[in-house]
Amino acid sequence: MAKNKVGTKLEQAYEDLKAEVRNGHDSAAMTQIITDLYAESLAYLAGFKSVQLDSKVAGKNYIAHDNGKRISRAINVGLYVPDLAQWKALSALLTPGANLNGKTDAATITRVLYSMAISFCAAIDLLKNGDQKTPGTYFEHFIASFFAWRVGVRPTNSIQVLSLDEENTKLPTDFIFDLGKNAQKFHMPIKTSTRERAIMLWAHQRLLDGVFGTDRFMGTPVLLAETKTDSKKRDVMEICLPEQWRLYQLYIAKLKRVYYLDMPAAYEKLGRNFPPLVVKPFGEFFFEWDALTQG
Amino acid sequence: MAKNKVGTKLEQAYEDLKAEVRNGHDSAAMTQIITDLYAESLAYLAGFKSVQLDSKVAGKNYIAHDNGKRISRAINVGLYVPDLAQWKALSALLTPGANLNGKTDAATITRVLYSMAISFCAAIDLLKNGDQKTPGTYFEHFIASFFAWRVGVRPTNSIQVLSLDEENTKLPTDFIFDLGKNAQKFHMPIKTSTRERAIMLWAHQRLLDGVFGTDRFMGTPVLLAETKTDSKKRDVMEICLPEQWRLYQLYIAKLKRVYYLDMPAAYEKLGRNFPPLVVKPFGEFFFEWDALTQG
Repeated sequence: MAKNKVGTKLEQAYEDLKAEVRNGHDSAAMTQIITDLYAESLAYLAGFKSVQLDSKVAGKNYIAHDNGKRISRAINVGLYVPDLAQWKALSALLTPGANLNGKTDAATITRVLYSMAISFCAAIDLLKNGDQKTPGTYFEHFIASFFAWRVGVRPTNSIQVLSLDEENTKLPTDFIFDLGKNAQKFHMPIKTSTRERAIMLWAHQRLLDGVFGTDRFMGTPVLLAETKTDSKKRDVMEICLPEQWRLYQLYIAKLKRVYYLDMPAAYEKLGRNFPPLVVKPFGEFFFEWDALTQG
Repeated sequence: MAKNKVGTKLEQAYEDLKAEVRNGHDSAAMTQIITDLYAESLAYLAGFKSVQLDSKVAGKNYIAHDNGKRISRAINVGLYVPDLAQWKALSALLTPGANLNGKTDAATITRVLYSMAISFCAAIDLLKNGDQKTPGTYFEHFIASFFAWRVGVRPTNSIQVLSLDEENTKLPTDFIFDLGKNAQKFHMPIKTSTRERAIMLWAHQRLLDGVFGTDRFMGTPVLLAETKTDSKKRDVMEICLPEQWRLYQLYIAKLKRVYYLDMPAAYEKLGRNFPPLVVKPFGEFFFEWDALTQG
């Protein structure tokens, strides 16, 4: 059952996603595609048994799905509510400019979005051996669509750079959300994990600070998780480097926030140390985004 | 013939390499292991036919080896001299503190070292499907051993960082060659390619500049090649981003040199533009290393 009718429908929904992002990340069609992707991911995973992983992460319990040939990435049981109805309830609240206070909360948003993202990534792990690109691309567009809805602006992926000697050049960037004149712009790298590449988040921020001036862009990366699953031992650990992140925040650039769907406990304390680096569950963004833009 | 007696001997030589680096990169045993790795790589590759690739790189001609199931990475024919005798002749010159002027030249060193490195990497491509780690680890130690011989100092991989509030922490780094008090130290990341991760070279340099002061460490990364081989189309291209490198050199940190074994033509002009970024074949390092340390 490596690839079946459900698998094909999942791949089709992914192709639809890639096509629709050309029309911006905030269309009604986009919401429908994201819903389809979730439904097809759950249908696909339902065909396989789930297995308990040996969690090396204090306070977190992980499972994976098993297709007999390999297992999927780890799924945090405490965050996982594979229930389409909860997404539909949340989705109904996400009308343009809606104020979510009192209607839902950050923990619920984090749980629902985590369940959607990890379902798709786990399904692709089983459907396509060793494919890292599909989950990465999906996750970028998935998160960008929520961000675009919340700030009411579509993202861009490159920016004009002034050059004295040569023609002006376009610098490819992670997602940029330009809230308009005199407002800080969001610089939002979106990755399924950082591992030993985390320094790139700060380096890209430094580049924007250098070209456009400090604080013109606000760095707010969004990450899925830092889990590493060993498919032979069937255990899962989190790879976290808080001391290195502290040095990056001190010596390379300042990130305003780092958001996670499956937040590693090791990064919580960074917000209380110097230099402050506030790492939070992504659900909180939906309630603090306009405070962020006010400095 | 996916794995045979020659393949096993190649894997054993690689295990010997990883064991020997614990005794420093400059031992006589290390030279013998590097020689064995080359001999076993050539013996292994001799069991497979070579195929012509469709080169998309102007002025360069590439082949690959084909084991019937997959092809190896691309090999630049203009640099490839798979001849153990040439390495033995070069190796005989590399006595402690030797002056190489008039005895060999930069182009010869680049060719011999390229042939050794690409032979091992191509052999592993065929021996182990999708293994990027083995070629990467090999290449690091391979280059570090020549560097250690040339500067007469063994490398370290971490450095003590002063912290005001907490205990001092060790920062893991790429290879650092400390030439002693009042001398600049070499900061040498060694990678088989950079692709979209090149910004990490500048970010790590920025971190060292920030912690220890500008110019205390001299950034001199060594890279194998920037080729990307498409195994289905059997073509090869180089992925180069000179305009982005220019921005990194302007806004993140200054690298003193970038060395390549298979030097991309697209990076040559960076040495003549502002800010100067000198990208050279690695063989030239052997003749300019002491001039570099004099600023």
